[in-house]
Amino acid sequence: MANAIITLTTDYGTNDHLVGTLKGVILKINPDVTIVDITHNVTAFDLLDGALAIGSAYSYFPPKTIHVVVVDPGVGTERRPLLVSAHNQYFVAPDNGVLSVIYEREKDSLVVRDANVEHYYLQPVSKTFHGRDIFAPVASWLSKSWQTPSMGDEISDYKKFVIPRPKESGGAMKGAVMRTDAFGNLITNFRSEDLPDSVLNGGAVKLQVGTHQVTRLVDTFARGNNGEPVAYVGSSGYLEIAVNKANAARALSLGRGAPVILTK
Amino acid sequence: MANAIITLTTDYGTNDHLVGTLKGVILKINPDVTIVDITHNVTAFDLLDGALAIGSAYSYFPPKTIHVVVVDPGVGTERRPLLVSAHNQYFVAPDNGVLSVIYEREKDSLVVRDANVEHYYLQPVSKTFHGRDIFAPVASWLSKSWQTPSMGDEISDYKKFVIPRPKESGGAMKGAVMRTDAFGNLITNFRSEDLPDSVLNGGAVKLQVGTHQVTRLVDTFARGNNGEPVAYVGSSGYLEIAVNKANAARALSLGRGAPVILTK
Amino acid sequence: MANAIITLTTDYGTNDHLVGTLKGVILKINPDVTIVDITHNVTAFDLLDGALAIGSAYSYFPPKTIHVVVVDPGVGTERRPLLVSAHNQYFVAPDNGVLSVIYEREKDSLVVRDANVEHYYLQPVSKTFHGRDIFAPVASWLSKSWQTPSMGDEISDYKKFVIPRPKESGGAMKGAVMRTDAFGNLITNFRSEDLPDSVLNGGAVKLQVGTHQVTRLVDTFARGNNGEPVAYVGSSGYLEIAVNKANAARALSLGRGAPVILTK
Repeated sequence: MANAIITLTTDYGTNDHLVGTLKGVILKINPDVTIVDITHNVTAFDLLDGALAIGSAYSYFPPKTIHVVVVDPGVGTERRPLLVSAHNQYFVAPDNGVLSVIYEREKDSLVVRDANVEHYYLQPVSKTFHGRDIFAPVASWLSKSWQTPSMGDEISDYKKFVIPRPKESGGAMKGAVMRTDAFGNLITNFRSEDLPDSVLNGGAVKLQVGTHQVTRLVDTFARGNNGEPVAYVGSSGYLEIAVNKANAARALSLGRGAPVILTK
Repeated sequence: MANAIITLTTDYGTNDHLVGTLKGVILKINPDVTIVDITHNVTAFDLLDGALAIGSAYSYFPPKTIHVVVVDPGVGTERRPLLVSAHNQYFVAPDNGVLSVIYEREKDSLVVRDANVEHYYLQPVSKTFHGRDIFAPVASWLSKSWQTPSMGDEISDYKKFVIPRPKESGGAMKGAVMRTDAFGNLITNFRSEDLPDSVLNGGAVKLQVGTHQVTRLVDTFARGNNGEPVAYVGSSGYLEIAVNKANAARALSLGRGAPVILTK
Repeated sequence: MANAIITLTTDYGTNDHLVGTLKGVILKINPDVTIVDITHNVTAFDLLDGALAIGSAYSYFPPKTIHVVVVDPGVGTERRPLLVSAHNQYFVAPDNGVLSVIYEREKDSLVVRDANVEHYYLQPVSKTFHGRDIFAPVASWLSKSWQTPSMGDEISDYKKFVIPRPKESGGAMKGAVMRTDAFGNLITNFRSEDLPDSVLNGGAVKLQVGTHQVTRLVDTFARGNNGEPVAYVGSSGYLEIAVNKANAARALSLGRGAPVILTK
């Protein structure tokens, strides 16, 4: 039988022992686990960035995958640890909205539990490293038992936030850059369903990104001319801005929060 | 039977093939190994940083885990490769003190060997990449045989250094910042046993960090007021300085080596 | 039976979900795979950097290892996906020359296929993330079937480039720095066979690197005097320039492309 899979998405970085320690805790409870890093470079304490990372990756994993998501500015305070079932998978995370993309997309299969059964924690529980003491051990015990009801009661008052969407305003749609990827591509909060058919079919678009004009929607960034900023629908379904073989964020001096205005 | 576990702690970074090559060497000798990265971003050639990384993580791993630790400014010179047994685990590392935390904490179970049996090396042995040619193959062969005596003779003159501790001076304790973590928290060399009971119980503390005053010991950084630097005992047992939801290193312009003075 | 091994070499970075998503795709097709990261920090779109990374690592892996190499500035255009057999291993990569080191070294065992059988792709295939939609699934299906002929026809007009070599000019050999490693060592494109025997045996060398003179060939960088730039043949067979316990790239203000001149 194949190993259970546990993924990790955190803002711990990879400069010290934190991620290694999580993995030790998991393997000490269940050595027959395959651990997969999604990313440990979520912007520190940034719930939206964490929500987008796990939200873009989870559906590509097999059924029964257990996703541990730790972006946790409120560690050690009263915020609850959650164990969520959705999409035939599991999610272990703090109750601060970092799973909001899952809540939004997987409404039909969603069961949220307060993972408050301390029997599954690593004792003594510290006040500052619940990844090690709560989230990792809960995930690893789950990978042995697959019994969620014994790990906490179902709740409905968990925290969620709405991923910011572009807004209609004076005949235009106003959105923003949400992230910059490894290539400097600017990932906006426009989804393909926000674009009029005329744009999707015709390829001509009137887009203002910061102070730059983008006039072409292409199918891949490799279609751009030298130095030309182009728009395309990226692999996660969001409209992205790129400059072919260049770093758009640097070339255009833009980053997270830069305004993106679509004129019809 | 579960796979053997080999962990890696190095200063190789992750920008080139070095870490991948180590893993290839390990898997070619024993494909049934689970390899875990602790970190590859130890500060280059920094033995203290390496010692703290492995020292904070090892005890969370299962018995029989084999830890490979390569911070090796003297590679290719006369320094010996070591195979250390301690805490029901194994450590493979250069003889330069990078295992000093293990030596200090695991005195009772410590056996140190000069891993000089070249039969277990990858031939020909280079002068600059003993991670690939000595440490990784020794670890992987060990994961097949579990026979340490055949891999080298016991020695007692291995190198160790003392992790610097705060010192009493004129009624105050003088210590220092040892590291900055991914969140910018400043990790000092004070341990909770260095703090008077009045501080641990009362929460009031007189701490000078660089030129900044810290007056409160809290249970978690999330208890700090906006912009207030607070102290707390971190998850590895060291006193840390944080600013809630901010990067203390940046906010206070402090880093490794900054003086930390505790007045009673 | 041990798991199949799939390695990953990309320029995706590790700041977002991309690498995690690749791994999900692989494990969903074949959960009994051991996935190994070689590096995800190949310089963006840099085919030479990618070619050197996989070229330095592959031979240390066991037979039947499947290497996925994605540095893909032409993603979504007409460039073909390849499935290459060589050295008793497999390589899945875009047809843009990123496997040139393999082509050069493994001429005798080389079979190159156009991996155009869409049955093995993840549908629908995006225009910008062929790592997820083509390269990862082709590799994972291969790890189940080991049948390359059914995955695409053999071709001979694949793209390759020549790794730049030093050139004779006016009694000197003119080469260049190809990369800087994690320690700041400058990796040149001289190989030991480019060096005259008198240098290899005697240790005296006349090398100009940028505007700096290097006069000693040593066996390991740890032999250098304080602040002295020295040359040595590195673990991948290339001549490297280092400054003992310092970062040569920073100390000498040099990096990729800096001229390296050997006078006999």
